[in-house]
Amino acid sequence: MVNLIGDERLDYLLAEDLRIIQSPTVFSFSLDAVLLAKFAYMPIQKGNIIDLCTGNGIIPLLLSTRTKGKIIGVEIQERLYDMAVRSIAYNNLEDQIEMIHGDLKDSTKVLGHGKYDVVTCNPPYFLTSERNMQNLNEHLAIARHEILCTLEDVIRVSSQLLKQGGKVALVHRPGRLVDIVELMRKYGVEPKRIQFVYPKQGKEANTLLVEGIKGGRSDLKMLPPLVVYNEENEYSEEIKTILYGDKADGASINE
Amino acid sequence: MVNLIGDERLDYLLAEDLRIIQSPTVFSFSLDAVLLAKFAYMPIQKGNIIDLCTGNGIIPLLLSTRTKGKIIGVEIQERLYDMAVRSIAYNNLEDQIEMIHGDLKDSTKVLGHGKYDVVTCNPPYFLTSERNMQNLNEHLAIARHEILCTLEDVIRVSSQLLKQGGKVALVHRPGRLVDIVELMRKYGVEPKRIQFVYPKQGKEANTLLVEGIKGGRSDLKMLPPLVVYNEENEYSEEIKTILYGDKADGASINE
Repeated sequence: MVNLIGDERLDYLLAEDLRIIQSPTVFSFSLDAVLLAKFAYMPIQKGNIIDLCTGNGIIPLLLSTRTKGKIIGVEIQERLYDMAVRSIAYNNLEDQIEMIHGDLKDSTKVLGHGKYDVVTCNPPYFLTSERNMQNLNEHLAIARHEILCTLEDVIRVSSQLLKQGGKVALVHRPGRLVDIVELMRKYGVEPKRIQFVYPKQGKEANTLLVEGIKGGRSDLKMLPPLVVYNEENEYSEEIKTILYGDKADGASINE
Repeated sequence: MVNLIGDERLDYLLAEDLRIIQSPTVFSFSLDAVLLAKFAYMPIQKGNIIDLCTGNGIIPLLLSTRTKGKIIGVEIQERLYDMAVRSIAYNNLEDQIEMIHGDLKDSTKVLGHGKYDVVTCNPPYFLTSERNMQNLNEHLAIARHEILCTLEDVIRVSSQLLKQGGKVALVHRPGRLVDIVELMRKYGVEPKRIQFVYPKQGKEANTLLVEGIKGGRSDLKMLPPLVVYNEENEYSEEIKTILYGDKADGASINE
């Protein structure tokens, strides 16, 4: 049994046999979170993993299928934190995934310095100055705009949390590429793998996946491009496999 | 008539009805130079353009078909400079293209500061420490390795040559992306357009095209990927058009 509040739904994560609580007015995960959970390096047998800006816990839930390590999600909005806790309980993953309700900027006080193997983050993409913020309720505005944390906060804290040789994986807009790689170097993290996501063949990329290694040496790999839609405006085969595995159909993605 | 020295050949640039002097042991242009000449922004009617590390003048020759502006090529190796001068004369382009034999690090003394609209450069890609330098003769080693100029020299001098709002376009290896964008910002050039070139569908990128604007504001576009070979290991249609235009066949590319 699960307790759903307001307009919450219990959605399927089809490729993973998991379910997640979502709400169109509070938080629904995006394709970007799914791509990040697939892109990030994961230690298989053990390890300590942190997901910052975890929202409803989508990334920890997906990562739990790729690692036996411990995963901690950090979320500043109590309403979203609460959704994540209920989803983890529903999936019986309390032994593997822990949620922390708090500000990532304070997270090293609780979580310590230099202890983690991997940090993932799907942060707010938009500057507070950007348009259409006024059309969002507070929950969505905080999740999408740099109101309570900036890109620099995310990268600084990620570096503080990571062991030497630990990895941080982020998803963001391509327009922030230069800021991201510059900030990574500022905080001692070397960008090592980048993948761009294109909505369609022949279009400009609209999403960036990037992974850096704390204390790594300069040597960047540019992965093959990922194209989301085919010419018929359906998900490409690659994206279908990521989203649905070998299952027939599914529609839990908020775009 | 053209005077060919040693193993020099007079090759066709098929898409452009131009010819160029090349030599397998001294310098032959690569696909990367052709892609850069296509990628770089060009003012159509007038403007002042500089190509650093110009080699046998391939990039100025190709750019001359896209602009009526004046183009200056700078080359440190006298042997290559001489090939470029003869190719320009052969194509009757002396009024539009000027070659300078000299070190790009001194070029602002001759060319002045802040006067140019566009700088292009296909610099040496490899660090002097990298393998297989010992297998090259001096001409090829200087063209391919950072022996006489570094990436930082190229970006610093490009910025000095450019007007505010002027553009610099480079081609390089993807592994240097982070260095390039960091150095651009260090010298007041904001990266604005990036395109990755993939040898084949599903492979990692092996070439990076990047354009920055002196004094530009942060706003990066990630262009659609360019794929060089199709599944049959032939040039893709896009690459054929760039290389041969609407002509049937051609094989002047050194790979």
